[in-house]
Amino acid sequence: YAWAKKLGIIRKATNFVSTISDDRGPELTYCGMPIGEVIGQGLGVGGVIGLLWFRKRLPDYFCRFIELAIMLTADHGPAVSGAHNTIVAARGGKDLISSVVSGMLTIGPRFGGALNEAAKQFTWGVDSGLTPAEFVDQMQKKKLLIMGIGHKVKSLENPDQRVVILKNYVKKNFKTAEVFNFGCDVEKVTTKKKATLILNVDGGIALAFSDLLRSSGCFTPQEAKDYINMGCLNALFVYGRSLGLIGHWMDQVRMKQDLYRHPTDDITYLTTKDV
Amino acid sequence: YAWAKKLGIIRKATNFVSTISDDRGPELTYCGMPIGEVIGQGLGVGGVIGLLWFRKRLPDYFCRFIELAIMLTADHGPAVSGAHNTIVAARGGKDLISSVVSGMLTIGPRFGGALNEAAKQFTWGVDSGLTPAEFVDQMQKKKLLIMGIGHKVKSLENPDQRVVILKNYVKKNFKTAEVFNFGCDVEKVTTKKKATLILNVDGGIALAFSDLLRSSGCFTPQEAKDYINMGCLNALFVYGRSLGLIGHWMDQVRMKQDLYRHPTDDITYLTTKDV
Amino acid sequence: YAWAKKLGIIRKATNFVSTISDDRGPELTYCGMPIGEVIGQGLGVGGVIGLLWFRKRLPDYFCRFIELAIMLTADHGPAVSGAHNTIVAARGGKDLISSVVSGMLTIGPRFGGALNEAAKQFTWGVDSGLTPAEFVDQMQKKKLLIMGIGHKVKSLENPDQRVVILKNYVKKNFKTAEVFNFGCDVEKVTTKKKATLILNVDGGIALAFSDLLRSSGCFTPQEAKDYINMGCLNALFVYGRSLGLIGHWMDQVRMKQDLYRHPTDDITYLTTKDV
Amino acid sequence: YAWAKKLGIIRKATNFVSTISDDRGPELTYCGMPIGEVIGQGLGVGGVIGLLWFRKRLPDYFCRFIELAIMLTADHGPAVSGAHNTIVAARGGKDLISSVVSGMLTIGPRFGGALNEAAKQFTWGVDSGLTPAEFVDQMQKKKLLIMGIGHKVKSLENPDQRVVILKNYVKKNFKTAEVFNFGCDVEKVTTKKKATLILNVDGGIALAFSDLLRSSGCFTPQEAKDYINMGCLNALFVYGRSLGLIGHWMDQVRMKQDLYRHPTDDITYLTTKDV
Ligand SMILES: CC(C)(COP(=O)(O)OP(=O)(O)OC[C@H]1O[C@@H](n2cnc3c(N)ncnc32)[C@H](O)[C@@H]1OP(=O)(O)O)[C@@H](O)C(=O)NCCC(=O)NCCS
Ligand SMILES: CC(C)(COP(=O)(O)OP(=O)(O)OC[C@H]1O[C@@H](n2cnc3c(N)ncnc32)[C@H](O)[C@@H]1OP(=O)(O)O)[C@@H](O)C(=O)NCCC(=O)NCCS
Ligand SMILES: CC(C)(COP(=O)(O)OP(=O)(O)OC[C@H]1O[C@@H](n2cnc3c(N)ncnc32)[C@H](O)[C@@H]1OP(=O)(O)O)[C@@H](O)C(=O)NCCC(=O)NCCS
Ligand SMILES: CC(C)(COP(=O)(O)OP(=O)(O)OC[C@H]1O[C@@H](n2cnc3c(N)ncnc32)[C@H](O)[C@@H]1OP(=O)(O)O)[C@@H](O)C(=O)NCCC(=O)NCCS
Repeated sequence: YAWAKKLGIIRKATNFVSTISDDRGPELTYCGMPIGEVIGQGLGVGGVIGLLWFRKRLPDYFCRFIELAIMLTADHGPAVSGAHNTIVAARGGKDLISSVVSGMLTIGPRFGGALNEAAKQFTWGVDSGLTPAEFVDQMQKKKLLIMGIGHKVKSLENPDQRVVILKNYVKKNFKTAEVFNFGCDVEKVTTKKKATLILNVDGGIALAFSDLLRSSGCFTPQEAKDYINMGCLNALFVYGRSLGLIGHWMDQVRMKQDLYRHPTDDITYLTTKDV
Repeated sequence: YAWAKKLGIIRKATNFVSTISDDRGPELTYCGMPIGEVIGQGLGVGGVIGLLWFRKRLPDYFCRFIELAIMLTADHGPAVSGAHNTIVAARGGKDLISSVVSGMLTIGPRFGGALNEAAKQFTWGVDSGLTPAEFVDQMQKKKLLIMGIGHKVKSLENPDQRVVILKNYVKKNFKTAEVFNFGCDVEKVTTKKKATLILNVDGGIALAFSDLLRSSGCFTPQEAKDYINMGCLNALFVYGRSLGLIGHWMDQVRMKQDLYRHPTDDITYLTTKDV
Repeated sequence: YAWAKKLGIIRKATNFVSTISDDRGPELTYCGMPIGEVIGQGLGVGGVIGLLWFRKRLPDYFCRFIELAIMLTADHGPAVSGAHNTIVAARGGKDLISSVVSGMLTIGPRFGGALNEAAKQFTWGVDSGLTPAEFVDQMQKKKLLIMGIGHKVKSLENPDQRVVILKNYVKKNFKTAEVFNFGCDVEKVTTKKKATLILNVDGGIALAFSDLLRSSGCFTPQEAKDYINMGCLNALFVYGRSLGLIGHWMDQVRMKQDLYRHPTDDITYLTTKDV
Repeated sequence: YAWAKKLGIIRKATNFVSTISDDRGPELTYCGMPIGEVIGQGLGVGGVIGLLWFRKRLPDYFCRFIELAIMLTADHGPAVSGAHNTIVAARGGKDLISSVVSGMLTIGPRFGGALNEAAKQFTWGVDSGLTPAEFVDQMQKKKLLIMGIGHKVKSLENPDQRVVILKNYVKKNFKTAEVFNFGCDVEKVTTKKKATLILNVDGGIALAFSDLLRSSGCFTPQEAKDYINMGCLNALFVYGRSLGLIGHWMDQVRMKQDLYRHPTDDITYLTTKDV
C-alpha cells in the first residue's frame, strides 16, 4: 500500500474534512495563518477564536469584544448549577476534566441560555421592522419573557456596572449597533413598566455580538444568521464559563473539601407507588 | 484502491483491534456467539456482560450474581453525589445523556470506590496468608480503614437485608468462597470492637465477585488479578448505578422541576485575596 | 437550629422532591418496595427498571422484554460512533467513566435515534387511523424515511434473527400488539417496493415497547404518550449500549492499546480563509 | 425559620465553602475585586485566570504569558484524539457541549499530558541540584523519556517557531527563569545525542510556567509545588484546547457533515472466545 501510495496510483476519498487548522506542515497554522504570525501580530485570544471558530481574521475591536465577553461570563459564584456540579464532583475526588464536564453539562436552555434566545428574539424584532413598543407588545402577546431583559435589583438609576461597560464599549468602538441600540430602546419601554426591567448583561453581550456578526463586514447576512442559529453565543458562554469552572475545581481541591451528600431533610421523598 | 484490494496485493495493517463483537456477518455476534443463540440460550443480561466484558460464556450462577449486583447497586436515594448532579442537570432542562453523565462523573474514589478497594485489600489479605485478626491489625498499623467494613446503624443483630441475601446466595451457589468467607471472619473480629463494623453491602459484592474471578474456573489467576486491578468492580457499580441515574432524570422531568440554584446561605464565601 | 427542628416549630420547604427511592429507613426501598423484597420476589433487572424509571411493579413479561431489549442493543461492533469514541478515549489512557462517557455522548438523533422516532411515527400512524398503505404514502409525501424500516441486506426471505426473536416474543407474550402489528403490516407494503425494507431491530423494539406502554394496563394513555415523548426508548438504548461501551473500554485496556491518532491522509484539509 | 433566622438565633454551619467569586453583593466580584475594576484595569483573560484559578492579582507579564499559552495550545489539527472525538460526536448531530466534552475526555496522560509531567520532572531536576548531564543520565537510568524534549522533525537549526517565541518571551520578560534555562541546558545535552531532541512547545510552556509559579514572587514555594502537583499545567492545556474543540464542532456543523462510521477494513476483529 505504501508502495502503491508512493506511485500515486491510488487516490482514496477521505472520510474527514477539516477547515480550521493544520499541523502537517513545517509550522502549525490556524485557518491558514502560521502560528508564528498569529502570535507575532498580536491577535490575542479573541483573534484566535476568530480564526478557529469563524475562519476570519477579525478586526481588533471585534477580538477585544470577544475577550470582554469571556471575562464577563467567566464566573457567577458557586451557587449556580454549573459551579455547583463541578464543586460536588471535585469533592468526590474526581479529576479536573471530569469535574469541569459535570458542571458544563448543566449549561443549557435554563442556565446560560438567555444569550442565545436574546440574540434570536431581538434580531427577529429588528428584521421585522417593529418599533420597540411593538416588539414588547408582540412578546407579551406570545406570552414570552423577553430574554436579556430584567434584573432582580438593578435599575436605570442603579445600573449594573457590567452593562455600563458594555454600553461604553459599543458606543466607542462599533460603527453600527442596530440590534444593541434596539435593545436600549426596548429597555426604555420596559423600564417604564418596572424599573428593574433593564437590559441585563446577558442581553448586552448577545445583542452586541449580533451586531458584530451582522454589521462588522466580516460576514454575509446568511452567515450571520447561521451563526446565531448554530448557537455561537452559547459557545461564547460555554467557553467563558469553563474558565470559572476550572477555578471552582482548583478551589475545592486547594481546600481539600470532602465528599458532599445533600442533606436529606432538604428533600421531600414521595416514594410510594401510587403518588 | 478497490481494485488493488480485490487483487489482494495490498494488506494494510489496521489501526484498530477489537475482540468483543462483530456486526459484519449475517448475524451480529457477541464474542463469537450469534445474537440469536445469546437470546435463545437464555444468557440474560449477566451472560451478555460475561461475553462483552470478560469474553467468556460464564456459568449460570455467575451471571445471576452479576444481575444481583446490578440490582443492589442500582440506586441509593437522591442525596448521594451521583443522583444529586443528575437531578441538578435534569432541572437545568438538559437531555437524558448529559444529565446522566453529569452524575456518573462523580463516581470515583469517594463515591462508589469502596468496592474496588475492598477487593484489593481482602484479596491481598487472603494471598498474604494472614489470619483475620492479623489482617485487621495490619490495616490498623497502616492507618487504613478496611473498605467494605462498617455501617452507620446496622449490626450482626440488626443485619442489612442486602448482606443477608448476599450471604445466602454465596452459601447456596458458590463452590468456594475463600475471599468472601475471609470477609465474614474479619467481620467477627471487627464486630467485637464495635457492633456496627459488619461486612457491608459494598464489601459483600466486592468479595463475592473476587471469588468468582478467582475460583469459578473461568479465569487464570493472572486474569483474575488483572480484572481486579483494572477496576471491574467499578464497572459493575457504574453500570448498576447508571440504571438509577436514568431513573432520577425521568423522575425530575416527569415532575417538571425547575432550575436549581443552591441557597447562598448554605455557602461560606471567603473571597478576599489574602485568605 | 437542631433544637428548633426538634421542637417541630420550623417547617422548611425542601429544595428537592424525589419519588423513586429512599435510603433513609431501616431498609433501602425502590419506589416504596424494600430491596429485600425486590430481590426476593425475583423482579430482575427489568423489574428494577420498572420501579426506578416508571414507578411501577411491572408484570413479568414486561420486565423480561426490557431485558431482551437491553441484550439486543448492548453492542453493535467497534465501528459505530459510540464504541469508536470510547475506544479512542481508552487508548488515550483515560479511566472507565471518562471513556464510556466520551462514547455515550455520540448517541443522539443519528446514532441510536431511530428507536425514539420509530415509536413517534408509528404511534401517530395508529392513532390517526391510517391504513398501512396510507401511512407509507403520508410519510413519502412528507419526504420522511420511516424510522425502524429498512436493512442493508436482510429481507423477509433472509430475516434478521433478532427480529424473528422479537416477533415470537410479542406473539407469545403480548395480549395486544396494535403498534407492533401495524409495523408488520407496514412491512408488507414496503417490502413490496424493495425486499430489504423490512421492520428492523430498532423498529421492532420501539413498536413493541410502545405497545407495552399503551396496552399493558400499567399506564394511562397520557402517561404512555408522555413517556414516548420524554424519550424512554432512548433511555433503553442508552442503558443497553452502555453495557457494550464498558466492554470496549475493558477490551482496549486488556490489550494495552496505545494512543490513537487519525491518519492525516484520510483528512481533507481546506484551511485557507476564503474557502 | 425565616423569622428565627432574622432573629439571628440560628447559626447553621454551611455545607459549602467557596473562595473565588461572589455574586451576592451589588457587584459581582472575582476574588474580591469588583468586575468593573477587573475590566477597567485591563486584566484581560490572563488576569481573570489569575483571580479565579490562583486567587492572585498576577503581574502583567504573567497574565500575558497565560494568554500566550492558551493561544499556542488552542489547536493542533483534526487528527489528534481530542479533535477527533469532538468531530465524530458533532457528525452524530450532537450539541456543542456534548461534542466538546466527548473530545475533552480524551485529554490525559497520553494526550496533553506532557506538560504536567515535564513540569514535575524538570523542577525535580532543578531542586535535586543535578547538572543537565546528570539529569539526562538519571532519566535514562530510570528508563523514562524526558517529557517536553523531542520533536519528530524540528531541530536547533530548523527550530519550531513556537519555541522561538517562548524563548524570546521568557528572555524579555522573566526576571528569573531557573527551570526554563535548565531545560535549555538539557536541550544542549540531548541535541548532541540526536538533533531532534530539542525542547518542544509542551516543554517550553511547562518549564516557563513552573518558573512563574516559583519565582514571580506571587506564590510561596509550597504553593508553587502544590499547583504543579494539582495539575495546573493540565488546566492550562484543557482550557487552551477547549477553544479549538469548540472550533471543530462549529466547523463540522457549518459543513453539515454526516454520521461517521469507522471503516471496518481498518479494524481487526478477533472475536472468538479463546483468543
Ligand atoms: C431576570 C429576571 C429573572 C428578573 O425577574 P424579577 O425581577 O423577579 O421579575 P418578576 O418575575 O418579579 O417580574 C416582574 C414583572 O416584570 C415582568 N417581566 C420580568 N422579566 C421580564 C422580561 N424579561 N420580559 C418581559 N417582562 C418581564 C414580569 O412578567 C412581571 O410582570 P407582572 O408584574 O405584570 O406579572 C427576569 O426578568 C427574567 O427572567 N428575564 C429574562 C431572562 C434573562 O434575561 N435572564 C438573565 C438574567 S442575568
Ligand atoms: C461505613 C462507615 C462510614 C461507618 O462509619 P461510622 O459508623 O461512622 O464509624 P465511625 O467513623 O464512628 O468509627 C467507629 C470506630 O470504628 C472504626 N472503623 C470504622 N470503620 C472502620 C473500618 N472500615 N475499618 C476499620 N475500622 C473502622 C473507626 O476507626 C472508629 O474507631 P475508634 O473508635 O477507635 O476511633 C465506615 O465504617 C467506613 O468508612 N467504612 C469503610 C468504607 C466503606 O466500606 N463504605 C461503604 C459503606 S456502604
Ligand atoms: C436502514 C437503511 C439505512 C438501509 O438503507 P439502504 O438499504 O441503503 O436503502 P437505500 O437508501 O438504498 O434505499 C432504497 C430505497 O428504499 C427507500 N427507503 C429506504 N429506507 C426507507 C425507509 N426507512 N422508509 C421509506 N423508504 C425507505 C429509499 O428511499 C430508496 O427509495 P428509492 O429507490 O425510491 O430512492 C435505511 O432503510 C434507513 O435509513 N432506515 C431508517 C432508519 C433506521 O431504521 N435505522 C436503523 C437501522 S438498524
Ligand atoms: C516527541 C517524540 C515523540 C519524538 O520522537 P521521535 O523523533 O520519534 O524519537 P525516537 O522515538 O525516534 O527516538 C530517537 C532516540 O531519542 C530518544 N528520545 C526520544 N525522545 C526522548 C526524550 N524525550 N527523552 C530522552 N530520550 C528521548 C529515544 O529513546 C531514541 O533513542 P535511541 O535511538 O537510543 O533508542 C519523543 O521525543 C517523545 O516522546 N518526547 C517526550 C514526550 C513529549 O514531550 N511530547 C510532546 C511532543 S510536542
